[in-house]
Amino acid sequence: MDADTADTADTADSADPAALRIDVDRLLRRLDALGEIGQVIGPRGERGCARLALTDADRDGRDLVVGWMRDLGLAVSIDAIGNVVGVRAGDDPALAPVMVGSHIDTVRTGGRFDGNLGVLGGLEVVETLITHGVATRRPVAVAFFTDEEGARFQPDMLGSLVYVGGLALEDALDVRAADDGARLGDELARIGYAGPTPCPTAAAPHAYVELHIEQGPVLEDAGVTIGVVTGVQGISWTELTITGQSAHAGTTPMRLRRDPGYVAAELTAGVRAIARQMGGSQVATVGRMEFTPNLVNVVPSSVTMTVDLRNTDEHLLQQAEHRFDTSCRRLADDEGVTIERRTLARFEPVEFDARMIDLVETTATRLGLSTMRMPSGAGHDAQMLARICPTSMIFVPSVNGLSHNLAELTEATDLQAGTDVLLQVVLQLANDG
Amino acid sequence: MDADTADTADTADSADPAALRIDVDRLLRRLDALGEIGQVIGPRGERGCARLALTDADRDGRDLVVGWMRDLGLAVSIDAIGNVVGVRAGDDPALAPVMVGSHIDTVRTGGRFDGNLGVLGGLEVVETLITHGVATRRPVAVAFFTDEEGARFQPDMLGSLVYVGGLALEDALDVRAADDGARLGDELARIGYAGPTPCPTAAAPHAYVELHIEQGPVLEDAGVTIGVVTGVQGISWTELTITGQSAHAGTTPMRLRRDPGYVAAELTAGVRAIARQMGGSQVATVGRMEFTPNLVNVVPSSVTMTVDLRNTDEHLLQQAEHRFDTSCRRLADDEGVTIERRTLARFEPVEFDARMIDLVETTATRLGLSTMRMPSGAGHDAQMLARICPTSMIFVPSVNGLSHNLAELTEATDLQAGTDVLLQVVLQLANDG
Repeated sequence: MDADTADTADTADSADPAALRIDVDRLLRRLDALGEIGQVIGPRGERGCARLALTDADRDGRDLVVGWMRDLGLAVSIDAIGNVVGVRAGDDPALAPVMVGSHIDTVRTGGRFDGNLGVLGGLEVVETLITHGVATRRPVAVAFFTDEEGARFQPDMLGSLVYVGGLALEDALDVRAADDGARLGDELARIGYAGPTPCPTAAAPHAYVELHIEQGPVLEDAGVTIGVVTGVQGISWTELTITGQSAHAGTTPMRLRRDPGYVAAELTAGVRAIARQMGGSQVATVGRMEFTPNLVNVVPSSVTMTVDLRNTDEHLLQQAEHRFDTSCRRLADDEGVTIERRTLARFEPVEFDARMIDLVETTATRLGLSTMRMPSGAGHDAQMLARICPTSMIFVPSVNGLSHNLAELTEATDLQAGTDVLLQVVLQLANDG
Repeated sequence: MDADTADTADTADSADPAALRIDVDRLLRRLDALGEIGQVIGPRGERGCARLALTDADRDGRDLVVGWMRDLGLAVSIDAIGNVVGVRAGDDPALAPVMVGSHIDTVRTGGRFDGNLGVLGGLEVVETLITHGVATRRPVAVAFFTDEEGARFQPDMLGSLVYVGGLALEDALDVRAADDGARLGDELARIGYAGPTPCPTAAAPHAYVELHIEQGPVLEDAGVTIGVVTGVQGISWTELTITGQSAHAGTTPMRLRRDPGYVAAELTAGVRAIARQMGGSQVATVGRMEFTPNLVNVVPSSVTMTVDLRNTDEHLLQQAEHRFDTSCRRLADDEGVTIERRTLARFEPVEFDARMIDLVETTATRLGLSTMRMPSGAGHDAQMLARICPTSMIFVPSVNGLSHNLAELTEATDLQAGTDVLLQVVLQLANDG
């Protein structure tokens, strides 16, 4: 009976690609194997990962994934910034490929899923097609892009940015590592991933789809399995250096103080108020705060802090920035401090392709999965690919919303669901005319 | 003519002690000489001092001052906690001495005046009496107390606290240094200042007067020369550890955040509001603030901060503490964070002796100096001496209100004025019945 069932299933699969499902155990085995390279064990036994871009660990991870690509018979190319693309041929070699992918570098205290899922989920899609003898009109490409995290070399999403022509190759190769000052181009050559394929790419994909963990709590909180990603929030990062007058906490009357710590506090409470009043997708965070000299009985002489503002709407993001600017000026005047500002990052929002968004949504719904439309709060390679081809993303839930954390986890049922959606989306796109 | 003038002056002085004035050049020479021991030159040429308690530099400073005491013929005693007292005999050996003094240890980035002025001003008073052949009924004692700053060994004002019986000698000797863990008693013996005189003292002084720089901007701001110190503010220091949930700044909606940085900001703005609303002598400072993990795009998991509350009135200080407690509880509930609290220090306010306060005020006024009554916002040895004898303090202006700072400065005219007041107050007290 087992054999019969298997035969029936095989027959059904071959006959009906829409009924194809991925093998989540095989996917988990690959996630585990890749996660062991650069593994970091946390204080409570969490199995996290520190596989920073262009380190020895990154090379070992790349070698493992390229080996899997070759085992699956994919044609592997490595470009001049180290992006790797493995292609399964389609029936019509003249057509542009459908590309899936993400990145395999991690932050210093990262997990096993961020990025890796999009790449290994792509391999799982290809292996499912191969196993079930399903051909596609268009080639299917699985890519991983160099230095998405930006944990070692800034800016983040560097490999995909160069891939789409947004940053000159030579400038990218000259970037220096934040930790040891190493040159990106030298590190790329050292680990053997300065490839011969030209970059930026000469041929845009037909479409790009990226499966990724949500990295936030929204799906879990809503009890929804599939996030249909509509775009990526615009990001505005500012560093402020507020300078006042150091003073004795006991002997300086309140009216004679010029306290940068007080101003930093009002600004921190103020960005919360801006986000609350604007509502919608507006978020606002003060993540860094440093007092100098940082002593219990001394009014600080200076404070450095950062403000992270994000919105899916460029006009609203500018409105948030404007409100924050106004607060800075008013508080600086009132307290008699100076505020120096430095922009650390500024990206406009990205909107994904409407047809691609619909395709992810209808596909997930057809598979019986709950969905919700949502923006991505984090940056992804997909936002770079969106510059050269129709693009969308599929999000799956992060347990407790955790990411960039050794305890990062997505449940196996959600990995199955997300990768099944990826498979079915790819099948439809790869048979497009 | 010069010789005649000098003779005339000598005669006038001997006849009328009320007309005696100190020699500010001699005082400045001593301040400079002591300031060279442990000297630190700042980036703008400021000549500051790092002479931490019971270091080699402290020993060298003590040796210098003890040498000056002996040169003036004072009887020097060193007690078991290293407090040093030099006594000029009075006409009636049965009477308790009038004591002046302060400390000669400094903080790590200290100046030349804090503490040193009270000790060297005392020597200057004695030398003026000697030079002009002025005898007093009571002995005059010049003291410097061990480890007033608490920069190396906690608590601060340790030597004077043991002197008045507020801390057991054995416990004080067992205190460990914050930096290198050295035992206070061992360091005291190492530098040769574990003396034979019993401590706490067996005989309270008749009165204690401490000349000190203000360490704040009030006198300069008011254009007043002499601060008539009415007491020392009560101090309440609390360290808070606020724990929330680390989260991605882009992917975590505002409503799902438990942000300890936001709570710390509201509390910091809140203590300013408490001080403003209470008015009077109430001051409130957040001097330390540390975010973890302190990254631009991560809602912090925890924040550590300190709150320094001071008031001259114990009841009002408790009211400020209570208002702050209420804010903590409300914000912790609203944001879903936990707040752990640790008391770092708690001292009740000290009121100086009413007759002693009047004496400082009337003396300064008689010398033609402007005065204002004020509390001390900082702690001083005088607050310990106030436990065993009538006590008061004389403040002189700090340029720009700076203290605990390499740029600490008091102008020569103010040094002259303050030390003249000290001299005339001592003269009156030392002739008390």
